Amino acid sequence: MASQDTSFIPDMPPGPLDTYRCRVSFDWKKLKLIFEDKDMLQLKMKVWETLLSDHIFHHLPVTPSSEEQKRRAALQLAKFHQFGFYSNEIMNNKYKKKTRCMMTINEATAALHMDLSVKFALGIALCTNTVLSLGTERHLPFYKATWTGEILSCLALTEVAHGSNTKKMRTTATYDPKTQEFVIHTPDFLAAKCWVGNLGKTCTYAILFAQLITADGECHGLHAFVVPIRDPKTLLPYTGIIVGDMGEKLGLNGIDNGFMMFQNYRIPRESLLNKMSDVTPEGEYETCFTNPQQQLGAALENLSTGRVGIIQESSNTLSHAVCIAVRYSAVRKQFGPNDNDDELAIIEYQLQQWRLFPYMAAACTMKVFVSLFTDQYLNCVEETNCGGKLRRLSGMVAEIHAMVSACKPLITWTCSSAIQECREACGGNGYLKASGLGDLRNNHDAKVTYEGDNNVLVQQASNWLLRQWRSVNDSENKKEVASPLQTVDFLINAGEILQKKFRGRVKEDVMSHNFVEEAFQWMLCWLLRSTEEKYQANLLATNNKFHAKNSVQVYLARTLSLVYAQNNVLVYFWKRCSDNSLESSLKSVLEKLYLLYGLWCLDQNLTVLYQGGYACGPELSNLVKDGVLYLCSALKDEAIGVVDALAPPDYILNSVLGTADGKVYDNLQAAFFHNPRGMERPSWWNEIVPKISSKL
Amino acid sequence: MASQDTSFIPDMPPGPLDTYRCRVSFDWKKLKLIFEDKDMLQLKMKVWETLLSDHIFHHLPVTPSSEEQKRRAALQLAKFHQFGFYSNEIMNNKYKKKTRCMMTINEATAALHMDLSVKFALGIALCTNTVLSLGTERHLPFYKATWTGEILSCLALTEVAHGSNTKKMRTTATYDPKTQEFVIHTPDFLAAKCWVGNLGKTCTYAILFAQLITADGECHGLHAFVVPIRDPKTLLPYTGIIVGDMGEKLGLNGIDNGFMMFQNYRIPRESLLNKMSDVTPEGEYETCFTNPQQQLGAALENLSTGRVGIIQESSNTLSHAVCIAVRYSAVRKQFGPNDNDDELAIIEYQLQQWRLFPYMAAACTMKVFVSLFTDQYLNCVEETNCGGKLRRLSGMVAEIHAMVSACKPLITWTCSSAIQECREACGGNGYLKASGLGDLRNNHDAKVTYEGDNNVLVQQASNWLLRQWRSVNDSENKKEVASPLQTVDFLINAGEILQKKFRGRVKEDVMSHNFVEEAFQWMLCWLLRSTEEKYQANLLATNNKFHAKNSVQVYLARTLSLVYAQNNVLVYFWKRCSDNSLESSLKSVLEKLYLLYGLWCLDQNLTVLYQGGYACGPELSNLVKDGVLYLCSALKDEAIGVVDALAPPDYILNSVLGTADGKVYDNLQAAFFHNPRGMERPSWWNEIVPKISSKL
Repeated sequence: MASQDTSFIPDMPPGPLDTYRCRVSFDWKKLKLIFEDKDMLQLKMKVWETLLSDHIFHHLPVTPSSEEQKRRAALQLAKFHQFGFYSNEIMNNKYKKKTRCMMTINEATAALHMDLSVKFALGIALCTNTVLSLGTERHLPFYKATWTGEILSCLALTEVAHGSNTKKMRTTATYDPKTQEFVIHTPDFLAAKCWVGNLGKTCTYAILFAQLITADGECHGLHAFVVPIRDPKTLLPYTGIIVGDMGEKLGLNGIDNGFMMFQNYRIPRESLLNKMSDVTPEGEYETCFTNPQQQLGAALENLSTGRVGIIQESSNTLSHAVCIAVRYSAVRKQFGPNDNDDELAIIEYQLQQWRLFPYMAAACTMKVFVSLFTDQYLNCVEETNCGGKLRRLSGMVAEIHAMVSACKPLITWTCSSAIQECREACGGNGYLKASGLGDLRNNHDAKVTYEGDNNVLVQQASNWLLRQWRSVNDSENKKEVASPLQTVDFLINAGEILQKKFRGRVKEDVMSHNFVEEAFQWMLCWLLRSTEEKYQANLLATNNKFHAKNSVQVYLARTLSLVYAQNNVLVYFWKRCSDNSLESSLKSVLEKLYLLYGLWCLDQNLTVLYQGGYACGPELSNLVKDGVLYLCSALKDEAIGVVDALAPPDYILNSVLGTADGKVYDNLQAAFFHNPRGMERPSWWNEIVPKISSKL
Repeated sequence: MASQDTSFIPDMPPGPLDTYRCRVSFDWKKLKLIFEDKDMLQLKMKVWETLLSDHIFHHLPVTPSSEEQKRRAALQLAKFHQFGFYSNEIMNNKYKKKTRCMMTINEATAALHMDLSVKFALGIALCTNTVLSLGTERHLPFYKATWTGEILSCLALTEVAHGSNTKKMRTTATYDPKTQEFVIHTPDFLAAKCWVGNLGKTCTYAILFAQLITADGECHGLHAFVVPIRDPKTLLPYTGIIVGDMGEKLGLNGIDNGFMMFQNYRIPRESLLNKMSDVTPEGEYETCFTNPQQQLGAALENLSTGRVGIIQESSNTLSHAVCIAVRYSAVRKQFGPNDNDDELAIIEYQLQQWRLFPYMAAACTMKVFVSLFTDQYLNCVEETNCGGKLRRLSGMVAEIHAMVSACKPLITWTCSSAIQECREACGGNGYLKASGLGDLRNNHDAKVTYEGDNNVLVQQASNWLLRQWRSVNDSENKKEVASPLQTVDFLINAGEILQKKFRGRVKEDVMSHNFVEEAFQWMLCWLLRSTEEKYQANLLATNNKFHAKNSVQVYLARTLSLVYAQNNVLVYFWKRCSDNSLESSLKSVLEKLYLLYGLWCLDQNLTVLYQGGYACGPELSNLVKDGVLYLCSALKDEAIGVVDALAPPDYILNSVLGTADGKVYDNLQAAFFHNPRGMERPSWWNEIVPKISSKL
């Protein structure tokens, strides 16, 4: 570790941040290489450099119209293809290495232009992946043309009246044996496809999910079809399709989210992605043989790739927001011990530390968690490709799905609240577009409800957790936890864990990994037991599983999933902290960050600990809160080093408040003086002058 | 009450909301008249009707450029003046009636176009008020011309490097006896005035705050001056002033927030607003005699008018957000007990109720609180004008200032989180601009940091609270609380209150006004005692008041202020509930709303109640949480009635998800199909076609 080469990372420029930067006790470049793999960081830097070489990727000081944003994103996508980031060197790697590189290119793109990365992820990555996992040889030309950018595709699943409940989709694909075609039809506006990225203006093909109906009228459920949408030469939609753009959104306006209705629109039989099932020319529906392990892996990938991408991007966004606010706080001064003295940098105020540092700790722990977890996820998919033992693989797939379902909500919500706190912590200046925080917020905001609404996903995680709980407490098969990734193997000791009581009296009693681990395990066991008990009681009273489940969500199942996600983040991060080759200066700051995030989470969940009887009296609350404040204060002189390690280059961060040199006021002056037309008389001056003419 | 005429309120149109609307147990129009004074509601409706008669006030389906937003807001302001809402009929009233009407006109304007209302509030209301309270007869022409819209003004206080700490402002106004002029100067960019609404592009005058320096070099502190900025005939700035627009913001882009630097810019001696102090032609600084009561009232008005406006507007914004999400939840269906049955409206889910109804209860309680408190505030200012007893008045002024300082943060933050929850509760559709929630968020967001940063204001409230605590516990003058508005008179019984313990066992033990009152009083006493104890301990350890105060903010003083604000909201609302003339159906729903907001606040503060020993064991937490869920369920069939009472007309709410007829899907279809250029081929199609040509 000590010998790791960090020379490729540029130094920080001098400026007002030096006051704090020189107090940092560790080498921030080495910390950066804990947050990011060296090769991947270099790949990111290469992507950024390449993109920035073309002005179409530059940031604009004034927000263009939605229409112009769409045009720019479309041109960016074309240029992105030309740059050929997905070189043979990358694509010839094995699955894991290859995918990790692709994910890194996506992270780099997303940090610069979230719009572009979403357009690519949906239109190319997701569509080609779907074709690979659901299609057969005959779809290879489509796959290739999509991958090279010759055609732009989109994935149409959501309908106007149905999002989360996919079973209720009503678009139909009825097979007509006479012409050997599927007839696609949208019964009414409620069944119109919507929210389809790339569909609004630009795509030429769609991968469409529709209910497959055979000539005998039988419905075989949702299937995917490759459907031509627009003439690639003219970009005019084909007759039989009503398609358009959904209009402005709160952010991501470079993406042309579209809606679409079909009027008995005919496509060839071969359009069906037919790996799992097919329809014969004569109209017989048949299920095809597929390898169960591979099917498992494909299912996991289809469900998870987007969500893993989201947690990667969100942990970056969170880091960027924190970086802006912490740097600003080290430069901005306001008030001081008395009127004559110099004022204090606002980072000196306990309140400001408490508002920001827990989010900084969250950013660090989540970055590390996401990176380690991604490895595990990719290993798992790779294993399904090599064909491991089915039972073990299906256990792993289920556990990974549960983790993603809990962590995507935790990380995206933490990111949302962090952005808002950072925006407020920068005062009025955080409200300037030039702060960068508004764009972070508006573009991030979609993530809490797309690719699985957070409030729906947490239920999937708690369902899995409850299954594990039941299997541990099953009197027949006691002590079986299907947790190959060991995220809940402590449940075997639930009886013992639930006996524990907090008896701490001094700071050291909470400032330890052991305490954090114990408290989290206790909470998880207690929440599981309480959820299950309430569920069973409800079931007994109503005899209705659906209602019984709905009425344990608030306060119980929902909290359970989020605490489970917090615990995963902490456990994975702690593994990284415990690496014996770590320099002691790094180890020391990592442990502080671990404890801060851990105690801060516990502080939010204190009621559970009191309600369940783990604690009684003032000590636990006092010690946890004192611990948080102690850690804030202990991290004050390290914070600039920590955010330097989290920070991307200035042109990616794109904030006048957060540049590496800390020259906030120079940046503000430049922003004000160079604000396009900012110092010009408005062109419409003569429309208002007759109305305000002084008679003084 | 029963005889109150509600016929002027239009009925709700039929539609999908009827299913729930017909279950409502009370007359929503009567509830509306509890939330809004009848005369004021009629005034609002008149303002809306008048504004909507001119297309410049209509909403646009596509966000215009920032520049165009500024043009529209400027034209709207001109038109607004022409409409003459401030008729003689209104302006000839006594202070209280007159101001209440002006506030109502502002509320109506803000609900339609927040930009416009801010431009008016800053440029006309605030500037004329400042001239009245700080200026003399010679400034009357300026006052009148501003009021009639002949000139547009702005108020320049904040500087680039100083916002909250006004004492450190560095713009100077140095008196030159030779020419009898003040020389205004900005030493450097850090002292540039900024964030000045109307300054960027449109104003012709500024009321400028600068350090007054006499020829002998003595600085006499901040004073206000009337300063010409632009030639009213050409809108070109005068030589000696560098002025421009600050650029895009996260919202409110119709307001031209400007920055400005002076280069030894000269203005006549008479420009000084000289009611409190003046400079003689020869250059002598002198303080003028003023009536202390009036000065008190003027100070209160200067500090509070903007903030009272903010809590009025925020309680409306909060209501609008809740109205959109609750109506949508009653129409949107997803999942159901089993796949074959009809799906359930999402309002049926406990989780959705729990996410939205507490905010609905907050909206109701806050609307009523704000209305009653505004009355009190206006009475207080009126009393200062009539000259009451100085001691009593200054007590009242201090208490009102404390209330505003606590309630502005509480209400604006509640509004922010409500908007976000409502946006998420509408799923992806909440992310559409057409949902209206994005504009609510972006325009509201400024309020948490302007007119007193929330985190700074809460400290002013806690300072006042601590003074009351000390005066109660002062062994010399025991039992004196300077709380003429009785918001903390229970502190006299603090000893007794702090002895109380929660011993409840059944639902009824928490579902009562008595319990909520007791728990809140206990929390306030405990937080006060704990804050004071920690402050004294810190003071003893550091001998530094500044540091001692800073280190009691987190967890203590900050929580104290917010709990104080919650308690005020609850106490005022309860007063309204206790009105004996209320119909029982209204009383019943109001009590549920009171309890829901009260228990929900307590749930957030449970740790305090456990930590301080008010409770031990699971009962309190269980009962409070069960109470919240019980109330959510009890309000489910009333919710549509409640939001109908909160809702403004559809064209004000401006949301496809929240129209009174509940025709969400018709509205979405219209929005998609009428989205300007939404179904057109993009004009830039030929720029991307060569890049995506199918070879299939």
